[in-house]
Parts: sequence; structure tokens; C-alpha cells
Amino acid sequence: MKVAELSRRTGVPVPTIKYYIREGLVPRGAATSHNQAEYDEQHVQRLRLIRALIEIGGLSVAATRDILGQVDGADEGVDALLGHTMGSIVRTRQTRDDEVWKAAGSWVDEQIRRRGWRPHADYPARVALVDVVAAFHDLGQERLLEVFDVYADAAEQVAEADLEQLAWPDSLEGVVETAVVGTVLGEALFSSLRHLAHGAASGRYFPRDIGS
Amino acid sequence: MKVAELSRRTGVPVPTIKYYIREGLVPRGAATSHNQAEYDEQHVQRLRLIRALIEIGGLSVAATRDILGQVDGADEGVDALLGHTMGSIVRTRQTRDDEVWKAAGSWVDEQIRRRGWRPHADYPARVALVDVVAAFHDLGQERLLEVFDVYADAAEQVAEADLEQLAWPDSLEGVVETAVVGTVLGEALFSSLRHLAHGAASGRYFPRDIGS
Repeated sequence: MKVAELSRRTGVPVPTIKYYIREGLVPRGAATSHNQAEYDEQHVQRLRLIRALIEIGGLSVAATRDILGQVDGADEGVDALLGHTMGSIVRTRQTRDDEVWKAAGSWVDEQIRRRGWRPHADYPARVALVDVVAAFHDLGQERLLEVFDVYADAAEQVAEADLEQLAWPDSLEGVVETAVVGTVLGEALFSSLRHLAHGAASGRYFPRDIGS
Repeated sequence: MKVAELSRRTGVPVPTIKYYIREGLVPRGAATSHNQAEYDEQHVQRLRLIRALIEIGGLSVAATRDILGQVDGADEGVDALLGHTMGSIVRTRQTRDDEVWKAAGSWVDEQIRRRGWRPHADYPARVALVDVVAAFHDLGQERLLEVFDVYADAAEQVAEADLEQLAWPDSLEGVVETAVVGTVLGEALFSSLRHLAHGAASGRYFPRDIGS
């Protein structure tokens, strides 16, 4: 198909498709003349994946390229690949080295040990968790961490269901693409469900006439 | 305190503080001369809140300003305020009107009805959920939606714990600030815990020698 048809099928504007090709997120089509190329179903699938990662998952173009590189270069064991994929998805940020952050790190490691998880110290999700815990302390909202065990139990249930889905027999590339989709869209899925459940629960906790 | 001390206490660079003041995210200090102002603990708290929303929550400056406006203008009932706050936090995006999206909408409404949730049709989290479900279909990954009930159960547990924390007696402004912190940081908390739980579970599902 021509690029106009590819655009129509995927909802991605032609200039954006050309940008993704230049940036290496989408492979070039087969050249049919000096300024035309032919695209196929693989291009459709790739563009839909990119759209989901960027629009629904909120990933940057750079993070999307990193993750697609892992989908394409699936030459490691699945466990290592999943670790790298998750590492690219977790938002990295400047970490700190002050007392609040160190205390948060010790507290997090105690919870991780209690749960029997075994991440290494610079595992991105561990660092992200320390950042969050430190932020609760910075804001004087550390009592909100009383929800920690409820959250961790819920995260374990969700992760178990995710991995069961992944364990279906499939090609290694298929497993990695499924892991990417499940990790990124699963986060958006949980986020919207949590907001809906908040809305449903808040009417019970805060009847309309209180506070007005 | 002077702006340099405010910067040291919060980790926010002076030019960034000035930018937030110009953009209306932080109130001006009390002028002490034509080019100096005095800041207090409220400024410290506000800057720490902004930093958490932007750095940990990944919110834009514009979304942060909207949310702070709700913290400041806490003149509605708590239930309505929480609804607005959550609405600002959910990433809004272009929605679609094709067959996949309509079918996703019907499916989502059936799940919502089954759960006894009662959002109106343009409730942001409902729209976000339809977007996610449609994306799973676009990608040919609709079987991943088999995890839906596990996710929804987990979201209900987490939302219940969140609301219990909020129901502590406090000022209306305090409730709203706590809701903002809990909603935004709670999402980052769950995300990092889910990634840690994935890492812990993937070693069980995918022993290192498979796929290599």
C-alpha cells in the first residue's frame, strides 16, 4: 500500500509517519520509484504499536524507540528482555542523596525483603519506588504510606495475571511485543480503573452535603 | 527567607521558582525592597508539592496549575472537588469515533454496570478506559483483556484504601491537597510496585535458560 493508505489505516498523519521513519521507529517501505515506497501489514502493526505507546502510554519518542529496539533485537532470554523493557518504561529521573532519600531507601529495602522480591539496588523500579516514598515524606504525607501493603498486594495480583498471559506459547518476538503492550497499556488500564473506583467510592465516603 | 534559601530548602533552582511565580503556580513573596521578597513555609510546601506532581507524577506545568487551582479554590463539596481533581489528572487525548472505539465503549459500559460504578458518559476515566480497550483491539491483543477483572478488583482494593486515608478529619483544603498527593503519587507508587512484582514473578515464569 502507499503511504496515504498506511496513514488512513493507522490514523497516523503522513508527515508523522515520515518522521518516525527518519527517527528509525518504523522501517522504510520498499522503494517503487525515486519518491514512492510500498508498505505492508508489518508497517500497519508497527504504527499502531507506536501510537498506543505514545498516546495511551504517554511515552516519549525516544523511550518508544528504545523499547522498539528491544522488540526487534529479541536475542536474549525472556527474563532479561522483560527486565530491560520494564527498565525503559519506568520514568527515570534525577535521584538525590540526602537523608530523606537514604531513609526512604532503607525503608523500601525492608519492604522488598519482606515481600521476597530480589531486585538489585539500581533496578529502575526500586529507584522509582524510593523516589515516591521520599516524596511522601517531603510533603509531610508519610501517613499515606499506610496504604503500602494494600498497594503491594494489588500489584502482586496484577503482576501474576500479566505473567500468566505472557506465558502462552508464542515466538520470542511475540512474547516481547506482548510484554511491552501489557506493561504500558496495563498501566493505563489500571490508572483509569483506579480513577473510576475512586469516583464510585468517594460518593460513599463524602456525601454531597458535607463540606458545602 | 530569601529566594536562595527557598531554593536550597526545596531543591528547585531559583530561575525555576521565578518561572513558577510568573506562571501563577506559586504565590509571590512579600516584597521587602524593589527587587527582593520574603518567602515562608507555605512557599516551601507549595514548591515541594509542585516538584512531586511534575517530577514523580509526570504532570505538565499546565496540568499542575489546573490542579493547584483546585487545591486553592476549595469551595465545593469534597465529592465534586475530588471528581474535578481526578479529571485534571487523567491524561486527556483525542478520542475517536470509529467502529472499534464504539464497540470498546459498549464493552466498557457493560463492565462498569456489572461493577455498580456510575460515572457519566464523559467522565474522563471512563473515556480513558475506552481508549485503552480500543488500543488493545487495534493491536490484536484483545486476549490481554482477560486480566480485566483482576485489574478491576485490585483497583477497587486500592481505591478503598485511598479513600479511608482521606476520610480522616481535616480541613477541606487539607483533604484536597491529600487527595491530589494520594492520586498522583499513588499512581507512581503502584506503577513501581507492579514493575517490582513483574520482576519477581518473571523469574518464576521464564527461567533463564528458556529462549536462549
